[in-house]
Amino acid sequence: MTTVTSSEFDRGIALRAAGAGEYRGELGEGWQIGGGVNGGLLLAVAANALRQELPEHPDPVSISGYYLATSHPGPVTARTELVRRGRGLSTGTVSLSQPDERGEEVERLRVLASFADLGELDGPVRTSAEPPALPPREACVGMELAPRELIAQAALLERFELRLDPATVGWAVGAPAMRGRIQGWFRLADGRQPDPLSLLLVADALPPVTYDLGLPGWAPTVELTVHLRAKPAPGWLRVSHATRNLAGGYFEEDCEIWDEAGRLVAQSRQLARVPRQG
Amino acid sequence: MTTVTSSEFDRGIALRAAGAGEYRGELGEGWQIGGGVNGGLLLAVAANALRQELPEHPDPVSISGYYLATSHPGPVTARTELVRRGRGLSTGTVSLSQPDERGEEVERLRVLASFADLGELDGPVRTSAEPPALPPREACVGMELAPRELIAQAALLERFELRLDPATVGWAVGAPAMRGRIQGWFRLADGRQPDPLSLLLVADALPPVTYDLGLPGWAPTVELTVHLRAKPAPGWLRVSHATRNLAGGYFEEDCEIWDEAGRLVAQSRQLARVPRQG
Repeated sequence: MTTVTSSEFDRGIALRAAGAGEYRGELGEGWQIGGGVNGGLLLAVAANALRQELPEHPDPVSISGYYLATSHPGPVTARTELVRRGRGLSTGTVSLSQPDERGEEVERLRVLASFADLGELDGPVRTSAEPPALPPREACVGMELAPRELIAQAALLERFELRLDPATVGWAVGAPAMRGRIQGWFRLADGRQPDPLSLLLVADALPPVTYDLGLPGWAPTVELTVHLRAKPAPGWLRVSHATRNLAGGYFEEDCEIWDEAGRLVAQSRQLARVPRQG
Repeated sequence: MTTVTSSEFDRGIALRAAGAGEYRGELGEGWQIGGGVNGGLLLAVAANALRQELPEHPDPVSISGYYLATSHPGPVTARTELVRRGRGLSTGTVSLSQPDERGEEVERLRVLASFADLGELDGPVRTSAEPPALPPREACVGMELAPRELIAQAALLERFELRLDPATVGWAVGAPAMRGRIQGWFRLADGRQPDPLSLLLVADALPPVTYDLGLPGWAPTVELTVHLRAKPAPGWLRVSHATRNLAGGYFEEDCEIWDEAGRLVAQSRQLARVPRQG
């Protein structure tokens, strides 16, 4: 079973076995943003459940979550299904559900994922992508500048140490750059080092890029797929996310996570709803 | 049930009802590439099955396929599961299976998708992405230049009218540009106009970008997620796909599809295995 350490993240995704392929956990109040539990944290809970079923393939390589209903602090059940056990890659599904006010289980998230052992991947690294050019951390800004309504609903932010590129936080003082990009340095507030599961949280940790398009508010995630490409080195992460196709009430949000060794350790894309205005 | 017209694509994805949520079809020999049936065609078959269950939400908005085993010409069974029916969006899963040599059903593809009515989406179009700058079609090249081993195994290519940007086909004559991008004009060879389901095929229709990195051969898809953002206008499509993170035996392949009205109608990313060399 998951070792519960003093890390907030590990406590946040901790599960206990509750039957064949089934696990129970508790979504903590500290992971809320905009009225629900953060989508990346939910994806990490689901991945943690599938990891228990796949000791030989403990790390997601590709994981896709479809968000069905908002999740709230409280008990959560994860039901896993093994779809295929392979030599280098195994695939499974996870369903996260919580009781509603009448005590009936409502499915919140359905996940499909392929797992491997990221430490066993080999082959040349021919990454042509370049990491984001961020100012040094001392020249970046924390979320204390964020608009009051964002912070008030965002217990989540207390879990993070975020230092955002000032060029991408104009929105916090009423002057969005209108480029649809937000980026900065990231680590967990309690110092826990990054690992494959925490990268799933990080892929959904920054404020929605719609803030930088002058569209504040909560942007509910419809779908989020994360590709994990390597175990991250210890230390700070560079995180950059952007949108190029806001249309028809939806927008895509592409995120890249780089570790301190300069590796592009995760790429993700989510489809989200444009925040309701006015 | 699906109207079978004289279009190759519609025949390729045609299904008949075979029980509650279950459909049967036939994967045609004309859709093979590199030893198996094309992944985009399989995704379209799966989407067609789910569409039968969701008359109010006929179009995928987000669809994720996890490829478990190669598919071959012959009978295919699609089993659907409704996960959530919503007002604007519904979510379901599809499992595609085929019998093996002993007649036992082997699952080939598991899909998770959210469907809507693309014609009902509204909201401003604020796309900042730019379409690929392609030379006029008369100045582009068809796949007749492709290496013999690619054409021999690629009945698929006869279904397409592809006119590739010459700057991205150096690999066909032994001189890859080493940029990891291939792009061009696309339409179906029999003139069928594009629609949401055919866009799923198009997202996986171009040769793997690894050819442009000097790595020829079949690049098996592990996972493919397509976001459909609008119904495409009739006419030619501009398709461009590229990789920026080839590492550890895998690469991501990002594809954009633009219609003749200049809309970015689909964005996709797949995770694939680097072709085995030597």
